[in-house]
Amino acid sequence: MRHFLSLKDFDRAEILEILQIARDLKSRKITRDLGGTLAMIFEKSSTRTRVSFEVGAVELGMHPLFLSSKDIQLGRGEPMKDTARVISRMVDMVMIRTFAHARLEEFAAHSAVPVINGLSDDFHPAQLMADYLTLQELGYDSDAVVAWVGDGNNMANSLLVLASKLGFELRIAAPQGYEIAANVREMCAKFADKSGAKISFTRDPKVAARGANVLITDVWTSMGQEEETAKRLKDFKGFCVDRDLMAIADSRAILLHCLPAHRGEEVSEETFEANADVIFAEAENRLHAQKGIMVWLHDQNKQGDK
Amino acid sequence: MRHFLSLKDFDRAEILEILQIARDLKSRKITRDLGGTLAMIFEKSSTRTRVSFEVGAVELGMHPLFLSSKDIQLGRGEPMKDTARVISRMVDMVMIRTFAHARLEEFAAHSAVPVINGLSDDFHPAQLMADYLTLQELGYDSDAVVAWVGDGNNMANSLLVLASKLGFELRIAAPQGYEIAANVREMCAKFADKSGAKISFTRDPKVAARGANVLITDVWTSMGQEEETAKRLKDFKGFCVDRDLMAIADSRAILLHCLPAHRGEEVSEETFEANADVIFAEAENRLHAQKGIMVWLHDQNKQGDK
Amino acid sequence: MRHFLSLKDFDRAEILEILQIARDLKSRKITRDLGGTLAMIFEKSSTRTRVSFEVGAVELGMHPLFLSSKDIQLGRGEPMKDTARVISRMVDMVMIRTFAHARLEEFAAHSAVPVINGLSDDFHPAQLMADYLTLQELGYDSDAVVAWVGDGNNMANSLLVLASKLGFELRIAAPQGYEIAANVREMCAKFADKSGAKISFTRDPKVAARGANVLITDVWTSMGQEEETAKRLKDFKGFCVDRDLMAIADSRAILLHCLPAHRGEEVSEETFEANADVIFAEAENRLHAQKGIMVWLHDQNKQGDK
Repeated sequence: MRHFLSLKDFDRAEILEILQIARDLKSRKITRDLGGTLAMIFEKSSTRTRVSFEVGAVELGMHPLFLSSKDIQLGRGEPMKDTARVISRMVDMVMIRTFAHARLEEFAAHSAVPVINGLSDDFHPAQLMADYLTLQELGYDSDAVVAWVGDGNNMANSLLVLASKLGFELRIAAPQGYEIAANVREMCAKFADKSGAKISFTRDPKVAARGANVLITDVWTSMGQEEETAKRLKDFKGFCVDRDLMAIADSRAILLHCLPAHRGEEVSEETFEANADVIFAEAENRLHAQKGIMVWLHDQNKQGDK
Repeated sequence: MRHFLSLKDFDRAEILEILQIARDLKSRKITRDLGGTLAMIFEKSSTRTRVSFEVGAVELGMHPLFLSSKDIQLGRGEPMKDTARVISRMVDMVMIRTFAHARLEEFAAHSAVPVINGLSDDFHPAQLMADYLTLQELGYDSDAVVAWVGDGNNMANSLLVLASKLGFELRIAAPQGYEIAANVREMCAKFADKSGAKISFTRDPKVAARGANVLITDVWTSMGQEEETAKRLKDFKGFCVDRDLMAIADSRAILLHCLPAHRGEEVSEETFEANADVIFAEAENRLHAQKGIMVWLHDQNKQGDK
Repeated sequence: MRHFLSLKDFDRAEILEILQIARDLKSRKITRDLGGTLAMIFEKSSTRTRVSFEVGAVELGMHPLFLSSKDIQLGRGEPMKDTARVISRMVDMVMIRTFAHARLEEFAAHSAVPVINGLSDDFHPAQLMADYLTLQELGYDSDAVVAWVGDGNNMANSLLVLASKLGFELRIAAPQGYEIAANVREMCAKFADKSGAKISFTRDPKVAARGANVLITDVWTSMGQEEETAKRLKDFKGFCVDRDLMAIADSRAILLHCLPAHRGEEVSEETFEANADVIFAEAENRLHAQKGIMVWLHDQNKQGDK
């Protein structure tokens, strides 16, 4: 059974294959009617993940079944393995947005159907697939130089895995204390050895941004970290993507942002709105990338059945 | 892009056209399969609005996507214009039930798809379309004399706009301090000049009800005003629609009520149950009227695309 | 109008007919497309009931409309009879999971469409239909000896009604103070007289389990009784279904459990996992049994219309 929990479990050809399906679905070169039900379990609330998975399921002929943490207490009251065994006997695919990545892995270990990561504390691979789909549409390929400016969070982790797998240059600028975890860096170093990806780490946003084709950032304070807001505002000083930072990037450089955007913090209003067309296309690409993931998982596991 | 935020944006012919579509759908003279997704954003919970829009969408071949304020924080965390830009790229129509009418207008200003008002602090046009559909089915037309007995709230506002646009006689009885706002009255006075509607205001329910064909009332304390309940119970003394008030109306007069009904407050149990057939037909007409609105918006904006 | 509130309203032939439809749907001997909408009202949250009814509705071509107690306040704010009259004019079937059984009965009394009990404080008939479907699939019939070991709760009540109607032997072991209510026992004694069911009550799990073909248990502390947890842990001492208790049952005896399971309380980890195949088949049978109920109600009330 193949799941979609982290890009670390996928090789370059598989990632590109999923993106190809996404593009073919988006351009209506292919249409698919998978049937069945997609259970969507949200332990963290979300607008974009919810709407994109629900609309994506509908467009693929699946019924989207929304389960919020208010309606279901995943793994509380009963062991996760029981919940996984019950739900996966009645539905055909499961999307989970949760906290600890280990919860996802435990659910998947006991699930009879494919499980998709809709965000965990460690990884956000569905977002990165949308980001790379956006870059492909804009004509970028493995020659692109990408700079991450911000927190070494689940987005940064997944971007690092993606770059290491696909082989593009990635420069990660994060303040002291907010670096990507050592185990993720070590894992990705091995991927990069194989793909030839050039990965670098810095504490200086300017070093990362200089001549880069693509800048990517994210909020400084993610959901669940609200009590750290004041400290983070101070620690991320100088990490705002604004006109000055964009000026030292490539002259046609674009900014990606997974939203929500906090103007005046990680991005200036001016730079955000100058890149709004790209950023909202990126948001819409959540829908298309995830359709690619669902179709790929469906086909892969159907083959596995035979 | 045409939206359905308030009847003030519609002329008489358009209102009647929407109602005609609603009747044709209800009688199955026409059927429609719009496809796509209707996002339903509820910042205020609701039974009737929820069920009627969700069933209506399904009957029109649209997938209803329910977003409650617990699952999405509209305009909190991110500017409304960002939420509108994201959601409207993935769905085909949006229904919003919210507090300040300005939130609706801001969402609509940035939305790529039509937006429907499912209730705001200022207007409740979908309910009024259901009410007028009910009157049409009962054989009433612009000659009907309608009396509003109660709070000068969003229902009263929308009824005033409807009467002023369509040209029927409306008498509004509201206690001191609960009158319809001056700006709404002034706006409607202009509409009434054009349509010939006879509009009058009074503090005496009997003056409004005398000889009227249709009485309409609503709860004295709307959702969110609970702390004013005791004061309102006192201020609305004498505004209960009961046997005595119905007795001075037309001998075949009916009562409309948008529900929920608080027996012993704005309506007596006896008068409510005597009019139950009409009132629950009115409730069901939320479904049919809203289907008319959705089809009209779909067709209108499709034409606009060309 | 036939509803599905308790098995006490059904005769043996009807119960078996519903189970036959369930088996025919599960084996795809028949398929049905009922159309319309199933409203699912949850005053108590639930995973299994939610997923099984929602997927079942979808597989029968009905749109499942999920209404949680956070989105709708059933019978608060307005009389239950008004809510029932409004909702049942817009949907085609209603499932309610609630507290007092009387709330279900009141809703049903005013509903224009069939109402299904998805759990009440008194009865859980949908679960018992799934349980009996599981027994049928395993080859058991009216000769089976069934032992209930645990609380005299809604599950035990419904099991007692089922045995009394179908005529199989049931032994109920419950601790002092947790026996099945006298009125339920008296009602079922009459059913058992007619069917020939052998019903016995004991406070000793061993007496109930000796030579039994099927053991059934449930959590000691149901939802809403959390403050009694400590007392119940003490009072149910000796009621854990474990290897020792299974050893005195029939050598091929199985355990049913409606889940969630609390290992170390009503069941040991070892005994639970040894019966996991049966227990998760039982959970899946919620889906199939409920599809049988929905199809039966649809057909029954359609005939009633004519």
